[in-house]
Amino acid sequence: MITLYDYLDSGNGYKVRLLLAQLGIKYRYVELDIMRGETRTPEYLAKNPDGRIPLLELEDRRYLAQSDAILWYLADGSALLPGERFERAQVLQWMFFEQYSHEPYVATPRFIMRHFAADSPRRAELPQRQARGREALAVMERHLTDHSYFVAERYTIADIALYGYTHVAEDGGLALEPYPAVRAWLARVAGQPRYVGLLDRPPLP
Amino acid sequence: MITLYDYLDSGNGYKVRLLLAQLGIKYRYVELDIMRGETRTPEYLAKNPDGRIPLLELEDRRYLAQSDAILWYLADGSALLPGERFERAQVLQWMFFEQYSHEPYVATPRFIMRHFAADSPRRAELPQRQARGREALAVMERHLTDHSYFVAERYTIADIALYGYTHVAEDGGLALEPYPAVRAWLARVAGQPRYVGLLDRPPLP
Repeated sequence: MITLYDYLDSGNGYKVRLLLAQLGIKYRYVELDIMRGETRTPEYLAKNPDGRIPLLELEDRRYLAQSDAILWYLADGSALLPGERFERAQVLQWMFFEQYSHEPYVATPRFIMRHFAADSPRRAELPQRQARGREALAVMERHLTDHSYFVAERYTIADIALYGYTHVAEDGGLALEPYPAVRAWLARVAGQPRYVGLLDRPPLP
Repeated sequence: MITLYDYLDSGNGYKVRLLLAQLGIKYRYVELDIMRGETRTPEYLAKNPDGRIPLLELEDRRYLAQSDAILWYLADGSALLPGERFERAQVLQWMFFEQYSHEPYVATPRFIMRHFAADSPRRAELPQRQARGREALAVMERHLTDHSYFVAERYTIADIALYGYTHVAEDGGLALEPYPAVRAWLARVAGQPRYVGLLDRPPLP
């Protein structure tokens, strides 16, 4: 059985949990407390030298890091990852957009607001990050104004990758009211079969 | 014939140019001046709503953004992208590492030092970015201490993705002297057949 090392409140981990639920794959869930350094122990760094979650462990003890690489690995061959070459590249295009232009500006403000006190110096980062978060949301809004999903007009792992933190953007001070096409897409994703929520604890295998 | 929209000094664009040269693919090269806003015109935003280079235009006028997605699209089916499922996911793992944990901290300091005057407020970002750049280089160093390349012990697009900005990290104030395994790998990449340099202007098609 595969194992997912994760932190329940992580949107990056949630992407993988949502996909696993939708593919009907059973897995062992190991929760690590990232705030207490449990991903920086020598034992964990031997598994993932980058010291981050989520991390997938295969049955033969090979390890795969980076949420979107894990999504790709698990979804390949399923209906959630198209088979056509250009569409597959478009899935990657949106996943790289997510990690480069969205996650640091939508996920990180949420992390700062949930984990750092009101007088923490980390809070000084918020205005600049939120401004770029609004730019990322505007790019999504433009695309979704005339598309139902990100790629191939159907639900794929590109949607899962972007949904992970977009649906909780307001936790990071990013109002979603100005983005009606994004909000309609969020509702379409939440209506997919076998949907689970970010804080739904995975069932025991 | 395909077209690459690019800016010659961009390491992200260079990754694509290096791959195109090594695959022997002819292409039309359109250089845009990112410092003069040529990627933010309505005409360009219609091609790439994210307003960035590099951007690949196919013969049928479909567009693909994000350097690492372009690498994947072009290399698929060639010797530079493995065919085995887990190895392919490992290629993606390192490409997502590159975009999330490396590019903002290795490429951006270089961009700031090359384009912003010594008294620019942007220079205040340098120490923190360089510190995280050294963390990224240390992750690479640990991996390369007992591997010749990033995936499958052979040269792949994961190496191209990480080479793009690592080989010019010193332009951003990041000394490579403390990373001997990284330096040996840089030399292995530079010794690959049909290698071209970052500022080598692409030949006319």
